[in-house]
Amino acid sequence: MDSLAIALTASLPDVNPARRRILDFATARAHTLGLDAITIGTLAGDLGLSKSGLFAHFGSKVALQAAIISHATDQFLRQVAGPALPLPRGRPRLQALLEAWLQYAQQPGGCFFLGACAELDGRTGAIREQVAEFAEWWLGVLQEETEAAIQQGELPASESASELVFELHAFVTQANAGFQMFGDPSWPARARSAIARRLNGVLPPPVTVE
Amino acid sequence: MDSLAIALTASLPDVNPARRRILDFATARAHTLGLDAITIGTLAGDLGLSKSGLFAHFGSKVALQAAIISHATDQFLRQVAGPALPLPRGRPRLQALLEAWLQYAQQPGGCFFLGACAELDGRTGAIREQVAEFAEWWLGVLQEETEAAIQQGELPASESASELVFELHAFVTQANAGFQMFGDPSWPARARSAIARRLNGVLPPPVTVE
Repeated sequence: MDSLAIALTASLPDVNPARRRILDFATARAHTLGLDAITIGTLAGDLGLSKSGLFAHFGSKVALQAAIISHATDQFLRQVAGPALPLPRGRPRLQALLEAWLQYAQQPGGCFFLGACAELDGRTGAIREQVAEFAEWWLGVLQEETEAAIQQGELPASESASELVFELHAFVTQANAGFQMFGDPSWPARARSAIARRLNGVLPPPVTVE
Repeated sequence: MDSLAIALTASLPDVNPARRRILDFATARAHTLGLDAITIGTLAGDLGLSKSGLFAHFGSKVALQAAIISHATDQFLRQVAGPALPLPRGRPRLQALLEAWLQYAQQPGGCFFLGACAELDGRTGAIREQVAEFAEWWLGVLQEETEAAIQQGELPASESASELVFELHAFVTQANAGFQMFGDPSWPARARSAIARRLNGVLPPPVTVE
């Protein structure tokens, strides 16, 4: 089984409906304000719940942050990975993943994990590791589908999967950053063009400089 | 005069040596911890200075953050823009800017402004506007040099400057994010390859899918 299928099979949303409602709200807040802005105290205030009630659900700020990341992982899997799973492995799945990710990145706050990486990359600890693990899983999924596309002849045999994944990932990341900063839909549009040009191997012909 | 030259001419480092030392420290902290983590109180504690002394220098948290962004702008201009200014406009300058930026992004905390954009993109207010203004200036510089390169025949006439800037910017941004998250120098190396391939118009030949 491939990394995408394994992750989707293993993903189970939180079964407690009260916890799930709290996590929906907390994850949306973390999306726009950053994980560090979410504490049991501020969350209790925002939701009109008692701090002791929230403590009973989560126990500590770090446990709450860990639960938010798991919740965001589940959302990512449902929104980005899920739609691609039924497609054939290789280029069809790769393109579907990139398109679903571009759409996901246009929600308020953008891609949860790109924001979390930027927030946490200078830190140490379990929360940072949880986010790094997600990022590595995701890069691994893109790498697997790109390798399958090369093996199946859907991309050139001379292509380096890791270099191609670097570039494709860069285009979506840049669309996310630009759209979040400037609110301008030309950013995802340029990412779509860049992805299409790159996968089709179509660039303006090189200039010969004397 | 072009945007790069104007910015370098207008840039004056803070003349007060005590303020400058404080800002060097505060900017480095903001680099790794985020702007929001820097308050007059925590900074006073870290530097062993009195809160009232720091208040006398900066007046408020927002004024301190604004001074940090100006200080980071000055550092960026000296480290990234300065070395490119003596070069001919167009492709030589464009390549020098991208290479200097890649090197700057490998310092602790990475590119100050990519971090600040990710931290502030969901906010409103003067600090966010100051960072957005910097980002627009920088994209404008890359755009001007790319347009000059196309006009001078150093890049194909059929090239779209804005699409090319999107892609080149994406490669450096991705190198910054990957290097900061995983501490792995293969990220800037892959950005260098991607930039060279893109500017030279060299891609693996496209596959014809039946």
